[in-house]
Amino acid sequence: MDPTSAAFLLSENRNQPMHVGGLQLFEPPADAGPGYVREMFESMRDTERIAPLFLKHPHRSVKTGGTLVWRDDEQFDIEHHVRHSALPQPGRVRELLELVGRLHSTRLAWERPLWETHVIEGLADGRVAMYTKLHHALVDGISAMRLMASVLSPDEDRRNMPAPFAEGASRRRKPEETTESLPAAAVDAATTAAKTLADLPADVLRGAMSISAEAAGMPVALVKTLRKGLRNETSAVSLAAPRTIFNQSITGARRFAAQDWPVERMRAVGKSTGTTINDVVLAMCSGAMRTYLAELDALPDRSLVSMVPVGLNAKQAGTASSAGGNAIGSVMVRLATDMADPADRLRTISRSMKDGKEALSSMTPTQIVAMSAIGMAPSIVIPALGMQGMVRPPFNLIISNVPGPRVPHYWNGAQLVGNYPVSIPINGMALNITCTSYAGNMGFGLTGCRRTVPHLQRLLTFLDDELAALEKAAGVS
Amino acid sequence: MDPTSAAFLLSENRNQPMHVGGLQLFEPPADAGPGYVREMFESMRDTERIAPLFLKHPHRSVKTGGTLVWRDDEQFDIEHHVRHSALPQPGRVRELLELVGRLHSTRLAWERPLWETHVIEGLADGRVAMYTKLHHALVDGISAMRLMASVLSPDEDRRNMPAPFAEGASRRRKPEETTESLPAAAVDAATTAAKTLADLPADVLRGAMSISAEAAGMPVALVKTLRKGLRNETSAVSLAAPRTIFNQSITGARRFAAQDWPVERMRAVGKSTGTTINDVVLAMCSGAMRTYLAELDALPDRSLVSMVPVGLNAKQAGTASSAGGNAIGSVMVRLATDMADPADRLRTISRSMKDGKEALSSMTPTQIVAMSAIGMAPSIVIPALGMQGMVRPPFNLIISNVPGPRVPHYWNGAQLVGNYPVSIPINGMALNITCTSYAGNMGFGLTGCRRTVPHLQRLLTFLDDELAALEKAAGVS
Repeated sequence: MDPTSAAFLLSENRNQPMHVGGLQLFEPPADAGPGYVREMFESMRDTERIAPLFLKHPHRSVKTGGTLVWRDDEQFDIEHHVRHSALPQPGRVRELLELVGRLHSTRLAWERPLWETHVIEGLADGRVAMYTKLHHALVDGISAMRLMASVLSPDEDRRNMPAPFAEGASRRRKPEETTESLPAAAVDAATTAAKTLADLPADVLRGAMSISAEAAGMPVALVKTLRKGLRNETSAVSLAAPRTIFNQSITGARRFAAQDWPVERMRAVGKSTGTTINDVVLAMCSGAMRTYLAELDALPDRSLVSMVPVGLNAKQAGTASSAGGNAIGSVMVRLATDMADPADRLRTISRSMKDGKEALSSMTPTQIVAMSAIGMAPSIVIPALGMQGMVRPPFNLIISNVPGPRVPHYWNGAQLVGNYPVSIPINGMALNITCTSYAGNMGFGLTGCRRTVPHLQRLLTFLDDELAALEKAAGVS
Repeated sequence: MDPTSAAFLLSENRNQPMHVGGLQLFEPPADAGPGYVREMFESMRDTERIAPLFLKHPHRSVKTGGTLVWRDDEQFDIEHHVRHSALPQPGRVRELLELVGRLHSTRLAWERPLWETHVIEGLADGRVAMYTKLHHALVDGISAMRLMASVLSPDEDRRNMPAPFAEGASRRRKPEETTESLPAAAVDAATTAAKTLADLPADVLRGAMSISAEAAGMPVALVKTLRKGLRNETSAVSLAAPRTIFNQSITGARRFAAQDWPVERMRAVGKSTGTTINDVVLAMCSGAMRTYLAELDALPDRSLVSMVPVGLNAKQAGTASSAGGNAIGSVMVRLATDMADPADRLRTISRSMKDGKEALSSMTPTQIVAMSAIGMAPSIVIPALGMQGMVRPPFNLIISNVPGPRVPHYWNGAQLVGNYPVSIPINGMALNITCTSYAGNMGFGLTGCRRTVPHLQRLLTFLDDELAALEKAAGVS
């Protein structure tokens, strides 16, 4: 087992399960009968050949010298992994999000392959939901989304399409680009970056590091650079964030909220204000969090700071990846939650994003590798930096924006109508926002610790309010 | 932690989860609104004070010297334990049993208190189901059923009744007797018997035993007696069973089947044939298994043997329990599956049951303690006996019959209309049948390994056929 996978497994505990998830909503085809969902479930369950990734489970024993190894599950039982569920009445999106939050709260047992797929019926509007859960030791969040998307097709009439876990199902497909901030190449980078860290010479890995950083395969020099950077001692990452309710220890219970907004609305705001779609997404998050924290009487005087993963250019990427592939870096963005006016916030965010990207350009190779490491595996790297012991966190949350397909896609005639990433909150980082575009909509997935982030679903209302406020400010409403 | 509890925890693995369960069906009160199930769930979830049994979880670390101890869960999260679920369409009993089988297949994680309660809606007939799962380290199956029953009341109009896991909810209530074979006192004995083994002097416990038997607190002499008995060398347990498909290694996946029949029908057969209700229950199981095995072309020439827990009389009980309480012993019953005629089978079973009870009377005190141990904790004791290495298993399955309340009971106005035990299959014993009577019905709960016992639900049809055949043979149909 490579050290990155092992690190994800070893950094796991009851409060910090290390799996990523995805929620997909499908519209059944016009000719679907009453038994449609059951047939969909049964066709997945009856998959004959399972891909190797979905058959292996972690194993550690005296025989393996206490080292974690992958082992095939000799008693693989697909009924444990593929499940048919239903929602309680009245079958609103609310009941669905409640179920997804609950399913996302449960750790995957090491004694079996580290994944589950739930086919969920009972939405009052007739749509079918699919929630999939995969351990971060198998794939990162972006690869998981690509995996789920890889079995879809723009062809409405195709049938006999395999499940994502079927052998041969996941061939490499180029995802289509929808936002400026994350070029398609960046999406390819996630797995490569993970490999990069693992590829570093073993003797570099053995330093005077804490166990988790060492397990993650991070060299000492890299961690020192990161620590300096995050402590505001280099120009590249020159921010320090205020303490917020998000930056506490978390519990194991999760809540999940998700909603779509048309990309066209964000594009219009961007065009009129000279900002990017991604800037508008960040401004929506900023305004929503400002209102949310103000309601809880917990809004800090100083602006919240978000870490935002971005694609690196060819030269930077070459530096970051010893395998020669592309890579994802990260930028610290001032969210301007201390400003009352939506237009001011958007402007500040846009400038902060530009500054961050320029800072990335002026970084030394080691610093770029470090920023790639944060972008790629925050849940390993951040604990390694000892952020919880710092007086001020270097950033308050991670907001990612990952492009998906631009045109409607189908799975055996069922149209994918919603696609939301379910991510990993960690200690000190109780809220995660991951967005993904698909067929003209931007899907927001908010994953939070149920106890630390109360009434998470209110953020959806505030996101909606904020988009309207930005449209008004930009004169496009 | 007492050695019995520790043994249940340590004998657990992915193929052999060690929790007992119960499925209850409720008829909502006449004035129930559309939000009834949700309110029922929420009232349980909002329980303010949880009983200590439901707050502790097992813990083992370097600090505890590797010993298992109970520890309070300081981050107790009731939403992890109390869940609201729904059935897929068409919401038949079949979908319910499928869900219960699946829920019963999942191990309880040691990092949290070892229980779950699922409030399940979506049955087409409007009934509400409740599935509860408790680790055997907390309670045995009979105590679990008593616990669930202890919060019910014969008073239809009572409200504000606590959940079974609420502090103070479980006061001691005398269960009512419904069958001759298991006196009410015997039900009280289960917990006492468990205590009995744990009460034995520590130096007796440390013998040249296998780890699981030692962990279970079984003295060497006792195990030797048991081994002799099971190997047909004493008169007390003078049977040896044929090999069947039930007596194989099992997997972790479970299937559950359950159904009711009126006790009155069994009583009529018993009266007309001079047998007990329990004899008729055993004859139903016998006939059903004969048909089931014949269909699979797997019916042995020789009769199957069932272990049947029975109540001990005062003198025997005094011997078996050092705490002075009552105890449950066990009898090996020839099921007569080699006979073609239902009346012959019932007669043979009845005689075999009588012989077994007489054998119990002539046992030495050590033998009685041994038989109590089998009756009380077969899932610990049987592996300790090394049955899997024996050419012939001493018995093929366990059939228990536990009396429940005779009159209808209610929980906050909802009438309990069905009550089925969900039990523990173990390696070498892939099927378990536990019956419980309630308000004039005998509920059969069949729990099996999904792989080893195919099409478990067919046994329900065969049980029904067999009761009809017995009625015909007895001239009461």
